[in-house]
Amino acid sequence: MRKRLYCIAGGLVFFSVSTSLAFAADTATLSRGLDTVWVLIAAFLVFFMQAGFGMVEAGFIRAKNVINILMKNFLDYSIASIMFFLVGYAIMFGNGSSILGLNGFAMQGADNPAGIPLFAFWLFQAAFCGAAATIVAGGMAERMKFKAYILYTIAISAVVYPIVGHWIWSGSGWLATLGFGDFAGSTVVHATGGWAAFIGTILLGPRIGKFMHDGSAKAIPGHSIPLASLGVFILWFGWFGFNPGSTLGVADGNAIALIAMNTNLAAAMGAVSSMLVVWWKFEKPDLSMTMNGALAGLVAITAPCAFVTPLEALIIGAIAGVLVVCGILLLDKMGIDDPVGAVPVHGMNGVWGTLAVGLFGHKSLGLARDGLFHGGGFTQLAVQALGTVAASLFVIAAMGLVFYLIKITIGLRVSREEELRGLDIGEHGMEAYAGFQIFTTQ
Amino acid sequence: MRKRLYCIAGGLVFFSVSTSLAFAADTATLSRGLDTVWVLIAAFLVFFMQAGFGMVEAGFIRAKNVINILMKNFLDYSIASIMFFLVGYAIMFGNGSSILGLNGFAMQGADNPAGIPLFAFWLFQAAFCGAAATIVAGGMAERMKFKAYILYTIAISAVVYPIVGHWIWSGSGWLATLGFGDFAGSTVVHATGGWAAFIGTILLGPRIGKFMHDGSAKAIPGHSIPLASLGVFILWFGWFGFNPGSTLGVADGNAIALIAMNTNLAAAMGAVSSMLVVWWKFEKPDLSMTMNGALAGLVAITAPCAFVTPLEALIIGAIAGVLVVCGILLLDKMGIDDPVGAVPVHGMNGVWGTLAVGLFGHKSLGLARDGLFHGGGFTQLAVQALGTVAASLFVIAAMGLVFYLIKITIGLRVSREEELRGLDIGEHGMEAYAGFQIFTTQ
Amino acid sequence: MRKRLYCIAGGLVFFSVSTSLAFAADTATLSRGLDTVWVLIAAFLVFFMQAGFGMVEAGFIRAKNVINILMKNFLDYSIASIMFFLVGYAIMFGNGSSILGLNGFAMQGADNPAGIPLFAFWLFQAAFCGAAATIVAGGMAERMKFKAYILYTIAISAVVYPIVGHWIWSGSGWLATLGFGDFAGSTVVHATGGWAAFIGTILLGPRIGKFMHDGSAKAIPGHSIPLASLGVFILWFGWFGFNPGSTLGVADGNAIALIAMNTNLAAAMGAVSSMLVVWWKFEKPDLSMTMNGALAGLVAITAPCAFVTPLEALIIGAIAGVLVVCGILLLDKMGIDDPVGAVPVHGMNGVWGTLAVGLFGHKSLGLARDGLFHGGGFTQLAVQALGTVAASLFVIAAMGLVFYLIKITIGLRVSREEELRGLDIGEHGMEAYAGFQIFTTQ
Repeated sequence: MRKRLYCIAGGLVFFSVSTSLAFAADTATLSRGLDTVWVLIAAFLVFFMQAGFGMVEAGFIRAKNVINILMKNFLDYSIASIMFFLVGYAIMFGNGSSILGLNGFAMQGADNPAGIPLFAFWLFQAAFCGAAATIVAGGMAERMKFKAYILYTIAISAVVYPIVGHWIWSGSGWLATLGFGDFAGSTVVHATGGWAAFIGTILLGPRIGKFMHDGSAKAIPGHSIPLASLGVFILWFGWFGFNPGSTLGVADGNAIALIAMNTNLAAAMGAVSSMLVVWWKFEKPDLSMTMNGALAGLVAITAPCAFVTPLEALIIGAIAGVLVVCGILLLDKMGIDDPVGAVPVHGMNGVWGTLAVGLFGHKSLGLARDGLFHGGGFTQLAVQALGTVAASLFVIAAMGLVFYLIKITIGLRVSREEELRGLDIGEHGMEAYAGFQIFTTQ
Repeated sequence: MRKRLYCIAGGLVFFSVSTSLAFAADTATLSRGLDTVWVLIAAFLVFFMQAGFGMVEAGFIRAKNVINILMKNFLDYSIASIMFFLVGYAIMFGNGSSILGLNGFAMQGADNPAGIPLFAFWLFQAAFCGAAATIVAGGMAERMKFKAYILYTIAISAVVYPIVGHWIWSGSGWLATLGFGDFAGSTVVHATGGWAAFIGTILLGPRIGKFMHDGSAKAIPGHSIPLASLGVFILWFGWFGFNPGSTLGVADGNAIALIAMNTNLAAAMGAVSSMLVVWWKFEKPDLSMTMNGALAGLVAITAPCAFVTPLEALIIGAIAGVLVVCGILLLDKMGIDDPVGAVPVHGMNGVWGTLAVGLFGHKSLGLARDGLFHGGGFTQLAVQALGTVAASLFVIAAMGLVFYLIKITIGLRVSREEELRGLDIGEHGMEAYAGFQIFTTQ
Repeated sequence: MRKRLYCIAGGLVFFSVSTSLAFAADTATLSRGLDTVWVLIAAFLVFFMQAGFGMVEAGFIRAKNVINILMKNFLDYSIASIMFFLVGYAIMFGNGSSILGLNGFAMQGADNPAGIPLFAFWLFQAAFCGAAATIVAGGMAERMKFKAYILYTIAISAVVYPIVGHWIWSGSGWLATLGFGDFAGSTVVHATGGWAAFIGTILLGPRIGKFMHDGSAKAIPGHSIPLASLGVFILWFGWFGFNPGSTLGVADGNAIALIAMNTNLAAAMGAVSSMLVVWWKFEKPDLSMTMNGALAGLVAITAPCAFVTPLEALIIGAIAGVLVVCGILLLDKMGIDDPVGAVPVHGMNGVWGTLAVGLFGHKSLGLARDGLFHGGGFTQLAVQALGTVAASLFVIAAMGLVFYLIKITIGLRVSREEELRGLDIGEHGMEAYAGFQIFTTQ
C-alpha cells in the first residue's frame, strides 16, 4: 500500500482490487498467526498443569514417597510426549475407522484437522495426553513400582488415551458422529485418567495401614499442604489454557470469554460447596476437601464449558463440589485407597461434567442438540451417558488388562519393607528433604 | 476471496467493494479477537497472583497457621468470584450515580464499557477484585476467625471494593470525572486492600507475643522463606498481566511495551533500594525486606505505569523501596501488628504510587494533565491526593464498620488457647506439615 | 466501514479505495500488535524462569544457605534489569564495531533492530540477560560472599553478556556476519552463564567436605527436591517463552509451532535418556539427574530449535541427557565443585546445542548453510565451533579477571566458620525455615 495512488478511474479500480487481494493474504496470515499464538500459549498453560499435578500429588502423600511420585510425574509427561509423537497422534487423529486412526506415525504424513499449524495442534494435544497419564500417579501413589509405572505410561499415552480421543475428537470417531459433546475433555482426559486410576488402585490394593481390621479407613495426612495448595492454584491457572484453548482458534472472542468465565465460576463454586458440605458434616472446614472441590468444579465444567451459561456453570460446579466429597467417603467405605482423590475428582466428576452437557447444554452455543433442561428431551443426555460410560468401561477394561499383565510379569507393587521405609530410598536411593527431622508414620 | 475475478469493469468494481466489506469484518473481528486474547491472558496472570499472595502470606507466618491462611486465600478468591458475579460488577460498572452503579446484577443486562466481550472484561475485573480481597488475609493473619474472614470477604467483594472501583474506573464515577489517574489500581486495588488490612489489624489487636511489655516489637520469623520468595516471583509474573493488561486491548503496542518495562524496572529498583536501606541501617541485607521492596515497587508503579517514562519508573520504585522499610518500622513503633507487611506494601505504596502520577505523569501519555514535575502545576497532584485519600478513608470507615459488626456479633479473634496452639488444628482440624518436627513458638 | 454505501459508480470507487487504505493501516497495526503481545508474553515467561532457577538452586543445596541463594537470585535479576537498561542494551544492540555497540545508554536514542516496540524488545532481552546472570549463582552456591556476587552481577549484565550478545545477535557482530546460528541462546545465554560458573567455582574452590582426602567426591544432598522439581517445571514452562518467543514476531505460525514442539521433545528426551544412563550405571533412576537431563535437553535445543526437525530434536535431546551425566561425573573427577550442575547443564550443553546446529541444521529452515548431516559439509559446523569456543573462552577470561579482582580486593569466599554455620545467618541474619528441626550437615 505504499504505492502512489493514480487519480485515473480505470487504474484506480485495478489498484483497489490488487491491494484488496494483498490484504486478503494479510488478514488470513494474521488470523492464522493469532490462532497459532493462542493455542500455543494455551498449550504452555496445559503443560504447566503438570507442575500442578506434581505438587498436588506430592503434597497429599507422605514425605518418604515424594521423590517417587515426582519422578513418575516427570517421566509420564516425558514419555507421553515421545509416545504421542511416535504413535499416539496417529491413532487419535489419523485416518482409519471410527474406532481408531492408523496413519501419521512419528508424525510422518500426519493429518491436521485444525486450522493451525500441525505442530501447534500436536503440542496442545500432547499436553492433554500427558495430563491424562499423570492423573493415575496420584491414585496409585505410595506403593506402585516405578518400572510398572513406566510400562503403564507407555500403554496409556500410546494407545488407550488416543483411542478414546479418536472416538470423541476425531471427525470420524463414532461418538463424534453421534454428536457427543465433550468440549475440552471431561471424558477424554479426566474420566480416562480417573477410571484408569480406579482399576489400578484396586489391583494394587490399599496402602499398609490405610484400613483398620474393622474395615474403617484411617486418614493418612499429606506431608505438605502448602505444596498441594500451590499445585491446585497452578492447575486452576493451567485450566485457563485447557478449556479456553480448546477453541483451537480465536474466531469468536465471545466463545473464549464465556469458556474462561465458566471455568472460573465452576471452580469457585466447587470450592465453596465442598467446603460447606464438609463443614456441615464434620464441623470443620477442611482445606484438602476444599481444594478437591475446586478441582472437581474444574473437571466438571471441562465438557460443558462452551455450551452453558455462567449461571449454569455455577450449578454444575456446586454439584461437583458435593459429589467429590461423597465420592471420597464412598471409596473409603468400599475399601478402595485413592491417596489423592483421583477417582472422585477426575473419574466421577468427569462423568458428571459429561452428563451435565446433556442436561444444561444449549444448541445455540454449538452443541448438537439442546439439553434436557432446555426442551431438547433426553436424546443429548442419552448420547452423553452412552459416550462417557462406554469410554470409562473401555478404559477400565483396557487398563485393567495392562495392569494385570504388569502384575503377573514384573509386579505392580513394591515389597512390604520398601513400602514401610518409603519408595524414595528403595526405588531411587534419594530422600526428598535431606536434613529435616521427619517422623515416618506407617 | 476464493471467488473468480471477472475482468469486466463493472463487476470488478462491485466485487472490489464487496470483498472490502468482507475484509472490514475480518480486521474488526481480528482486532477484537486479539484484544480478547490479550485481556484474557492478562486475566489468567492476575488470577495466578492469588497463588503468589498465598505463598507470600503462608511463608511469612508460622507453620501452625498455614492451613488457615491458605484456606482464607482460596476462599476469598472463590467468594469474590461469586459475589462479583452476583453483585459487585453491577455496583462497579452498572449505570447509576457517580457514587455507585445499580444494574447488571448476576450479569443480567450488565453494561460493557470495554471493547472486548463482556465476559472477558468480567474475568479480568473479577481477578482484580480477588486480589484486593486477599491482601487483607496477610495483615490479619495468625489470629482471625475463619468465619469472620468469610463475612469480611463477602462485604469487600460485593460492595466496598466495587464502590471504590466505580468512583475511579466507571465512566460516571466522580473521581473519573475529575481526571483522576489510576491506570491499573494503586488506589482501586492496593490502597483498598492495604487500608482494609490496616483497620482490620487494629481492631484485632496484635498477636500474642508480638510486643514486649515496654512496647518494643519482637520479630516473629516466617516459617518458609523459600515459599514466600516463590510467591513474590509469582506476583511479579502476575503483575505483567495486572498492569499491561489494563490497556484492555492492543490498540497501541507501544503503550503495552512501556507499561511492561516500567513495571519491571520499578520492581527491580524497589528491591535494590529497600535492600540498600536495610543493609545500611541494620548491617545485613535482609531477604524479606528486599522482597517487600520489590512488591512495593510493583504497587507504586501500578497507577503511573502508563503515564511515566522508564527513568521515572526507576525513581518511583526507588522511593517505594525506602517507603516500605520506613512503613514497617513505623507500624512496629505504633504497636500495630501486620504479620506480612500488607499495610506498608499495599496501603502506603498504593497512596505513593497514586501521588506519583500527579508528580511524574505526562499528558502526552494519556493522563488528564501534566504532573507537577512537567509544568502542569499542582492540579493533577491535588486530584490524585483527593482521590487516594478519599478512597482510603472510605475503605477504613466502611471496613471498620464491617469488622466492628463482626466483632460484636460472632467475634473477630480466636481464643487465646487456639492462637497459641495454632489455627490450623483449631479451625480446620489439620496440620500443614504432617510428619515434620516443628517447634511451636509463641 | 460504518458509512452508508452510495450506489453511484464514481463515489463507490472512491469509497472503496479510501476504506482499503484504512484497512492497510489496520492490518499493519494489527500485525505489530500481535507481534508485540507475543514477544511480551514470551518475555513474561522468560522472567518467570527466574523463579525456576531460584527453586532449582535452593532445592539442590542445604537449608542453611537457602536465604543466601534466593537473595542472589532476586538481586541478580533486579540488578541485571537496571544495568541492562543503563549500559547493557547499548553495548549489545548499539551501533559500534563488530565487537561491541556504543550507543543507547539508558536507552536514550537506542537502536531497535526488531519490528516490535523498542521497550518490548528490551524487556525480552533484559529477561535473557537476567537468566545468564543467575545461572552462576548455582555453580558458586554455599560459599560465595553476597557482596562479591553483587559485583559479579554488575559485571556480567552490564558488559560481559552484552558483548557476547553483540557478537551473535547484533546485525554487525562478527559471528552474526559469519552466519553463526544460535537461535535462542545456547551460546549467548547458557554457555555464557555456564562457563562463568565454571571459572567462578574453580576460583572459589570446593565446599568444605565435598572432596575426601583421597580426592573422591561426596554427595551433598539438596534439602528440598520438591522445590527443585517445581523449579524444573517452571523452567520448562518458561522455555516456551525463551525459544518460541525468539522469533520476535508471528510472521510465520509454522516456525513458532516447530520451535515449541522441538523444545518440548528435546526436554522430554533429555529426561528419559539421562534417567536411563543413570539407571544403567548406578542401578537406581535418580530424580536429580533426570531433572538435569530435562534441563540439558532444553539448553541443547535452544540454539537449533528453529533449524531442525522434531526427530532431530529428539536426537539432540537424547545426547544432551547423556552428556549432562558424563559432565557431572567428570567435574567430580576433576575436583571441581558445582553444587547444582550449572556447568554440565548450561556450559557443556550450551556448546553441544550450538554444535548441533552445524550437524543437523537445515538451510531451508533459515540457517545460513545446511549442516554436516544434510550435505552442507563442515563449513557451518566450523563456524559453530569457532563461535561457541570463542564466546566460551572470552567469558572464561573476562569473568576470570572479574572474579580474580574481587578475590584480591573484598574476597570471594566467606569464612570457614560462616560456611559451616550457613550463609543465611552469617550474611543475612535470617533462617529459611524458622521452627523446623533441621540437622546442619557439614
